[in-house]
Amino acid sequence: MSNDKQLVIGLFGFGVVGEGLYKVLHQTESLNARIKKVCIKNANKKRNAPDELFTTDRDVILNDPEINVVVEVINESEPAFYIVSTALKNGKEVVSASKKMIAEHLPELLKLQTETGLSFLYEASACASIPVIRNLEEYYDNDLLHGIRGIVNGSTNYILTKMFEEKLDFKQALLQAQQLGFAEADPTLDVDGWDAVNKWVILLLHAYGVVSKVEDVLFTGIQNIQGADATVGREKNLEIRLVGQAKKLQNGKVAAFVLPQFVKHDDHLSFVKNEYNGAVVESSFADKQFFYGKGAGSFPTASAVLSDISALRYDYKYEYKKLYYHQPNELTTDYYLKVYLSFDDWDFIPKEKLEWIEEWHAESDRKYLVGVVHANELKQNNWWRENGTSLILSPEPIIEDVEIRKLKKKSLELAGLNIN
Amino acid sequence: MSNDKQLVIGLFGFGVVGEGLYKVLHQTESLNARIKKVCIKNANKKRNAPDELFTTDRDVILNDPEINVVVEVINESEPAFYIVSTALKNGKEVVSASKKMIAEHLPELLKLQTETGLSFLYEASACASIPVIRNLEEYYDNDLLHGIRGIVNGSTNYILTKMFEEKLDFKQALLQAQQLGFAEADPTLDVDGWDAVNKWVILLLHAYGVVSKVEDVLFTGIQNIQGADATVGREKNLEIRLVGQAKKLQNGKVAAFVLPQFVKHDDHLSFVKNEYNGAVVESSFADKQFFYGKGAGSFPTASAVLSDISALRYDYKYEYKKLYYHQPNELTTDYYLKVYLSFDDWDFIPKEKLEWIEEWHAESDRKYLVGVVHANELKQNNWWRENGTSLILSPEPIIEDVEIRKLKKKSLELAGLNIN
Repeated sequence: MSNDKQLVIGLFGFGVVGEGLYKVLHQTESLNARIKKVCIKNANKKRNAPDELFTTDRDVILNDPEINVVVEVINESEPAFYIVSTALKNGKEVVSASKKMIAEHLPELLKLQTETGLSFLYEASACASIPVIRNLEEYYDNDLLHGIRGIVNGSTNYILTKMFEEKLDFKQALLQAQQLGFAEADPTLDVDGWDAVNKWVILLLHAYGVVSKVEDVLFTGIQNIQGADATVGREKNLEIRLVGQAKKLQNGKVAAFVLPQFVKHDDHLSFVKNEYNGAVVESSFADKQFFYGKGAGSFPTASAVLSDISALRYDYKYEYKKLYYHQPNELTTDYYLKVYLSFDDWDFIPKEKLEWIEEWHAESDRKYLVGVVHANELKQNNWWRENGTSLILSPEPIIEDVEIRKLKKKSLELAGLNIN
Repeated sequence: MSNDKQLVIGLFGFGVVGEGLYKVLHQTESLNARIKKVCIKNANKKRNAPDELFTTDRDVILNDPEINVVVEVINESEPAFYIVSTALKNGKEVVSASKKMIAEHLPELLKLQTETGLSFLYEASACASIPVIRNLEEYYDNDLLHGIRGIVNGSTNYILTKMFEEKLDFKQALLQAQQLGFAEADPTLDVDGWDAVNKWVILLLHAYGVVSKVEDVLFTGIQNIQGADATVGREKNLEIRLVGQAKKLQNGKVAAFVLPQFVKHDDHLSFVKNEYNGAVVESSFADKQFFYGKGAGSFPTASAVLSDISALRYDYKYEYKKLYYHQPNELTTDYYLKVYLSFDDWDFIPKEKLEWIEEWHAESDRKYLVGVVHANELKQNNWWRENGTSLILSPEPIIEDVEIRKLKKKSLELAGLNIN
């Protein structure tokens, strides 16, 4: 490994992240990196950099033998995949921030890395500036990881914070987030949980060596959360977050989901407010570790990209140890979840699908219940996110099979029955 | 790099950390590591492991050619240095948790690593389970690190929390910490700041490439903090922490100290209560990142040692990039600090040594002032920690030269004078 490695960069995208990167690399000689060419879509836009830097022809970068690093910070998924895969095939190392592209193409991207032996780094794709991928990859690289929980989408967290703290309704909070630049004009990707689950698919690979697709993960966003849910939360002294969670169950398989969750005030994730991100990693001996920082925005994203570029000087690459060197883990939906459900009409809830109901409230327009449901039921059906029904997990929501059998038996016994 | 590397470990120390490690390695086949021999001091103590595992002769391990990794978790500094340096010279890689030993022998340990090319890892020596060394080394490996602040000693943090929240006096809080195992029978190393400054010397190396001694760092502990200080804090809506801080000043040099500090409620470090540790890393683009977890205790320490052992399988070593590959940084005491001082008698305070005083309270037995003092004055003199005088930094305590000249001029102008 050497510090003399000169990085000659071809950059795709010159939005806020790309331009920020350009400025820093200019100012930081010690990085030994220079941007040779920037590929942009719109040639006519005025840019704060010399004209000769720019091209609209991606092959100018992809076929330039002097360029040894491609950095890709564009928004569209399919062009990003073409750029990343072609760059690797052409012998260039790659840094990317495109979570959607990565989550959609994990198998191909893993194969390309194995075939080429080149580095493909993408710390910016999950929690931006928080080095969660690198820590899962390097520091929690043994098989003693009990679980990880995280808030990985700043837009939805901002909206939930405002609904909770300022009692705004969903639409008002969303509007405020959009005005402040924390949510896109079309907020669906964030609000419906797509952005979060893309990131969760990436983190599952680094946490547990699981190669999965978005469709394999049980998820929804905050689109159905209502002011009434926040009110119930306040009554119960709980806050609401959109939480990604992965946990190794007693049977050795991994439960993984991204769902709204009630969190207690002493939960580390309750510290994560507004547009921030945070992750709690639980391992055999370290107890809980909490990582917190800015998870989106141009500077935090540029910062993560920069750390990846910097790591390339030392030939750093992800080794996917948990995938290649350990017994890879398998996802399962064979477990139970304790859930809160609020809804407008009892008819929307297939009560027979719940294992049991331990609390119900029919006193106001917005009704709710607390009960236990099999994860597979949620995975395979949609009733819990239709008709404005809102599902929020209880704190510590996962109930494993063994425990539920005991509880079932006990409740039946209490009811005067007996099972074996 | 290979997963097939078989680690044969010689372990020094079989206290709570050593025994914990032994158990985990036994249970975790995938680590591909086994403990061949354990060196202990007292042969007569009953141990939860087969007798043939133990020896009291350190050379049995140090001279065994089959043993390729030495793990050292003993308490005494000089024997630890002998073990670590001999092991490296004998071609073995080393994992250590001895912060005091490391802080006292940085130059020799760096030289030995360069000469032997072997790994010497010591994540457990600072903040135990929180991977702060690894992150400073790997992720913040460029020169864009603005500063780092941390709570690195759990005992003092526990005491301060209890003084603050339960209004215990210092002695009661210390006793409680001792009863719970959060403080040693002889608490001086913790209470007077030695443990924290040892860790800070290690973190300075990884944050800024500074090779320093404890004597180079301005520090004290919490030995003089009184209930009255906590009362003032509560009035001002501030909490008290023992904070290690390092910051790159405008002149490019590094200010570093470990001192009690008032922190605001929205400071990430105010989240760190009781025996926990936390660190806030501030860099050019990432804004603030917060790392939080258990910083002491047998399990968190064993966890960090385990991560280091695990990293050895992939030939990981610290590269000390900021020391060897960048312009190394230099410590300075040429800056000013805004301080709160409480004391029993005005005569204890050399008022002429303060740049100015902006607040003073003589109304009760315990008097206090808020003013500005040059760091060099504190570095070279002891009045501020004698006679029961208690010094606590203000939030954002560092005032750089340029700013103070402006403020000085302004205050003189206000007083009807003029300077150039």
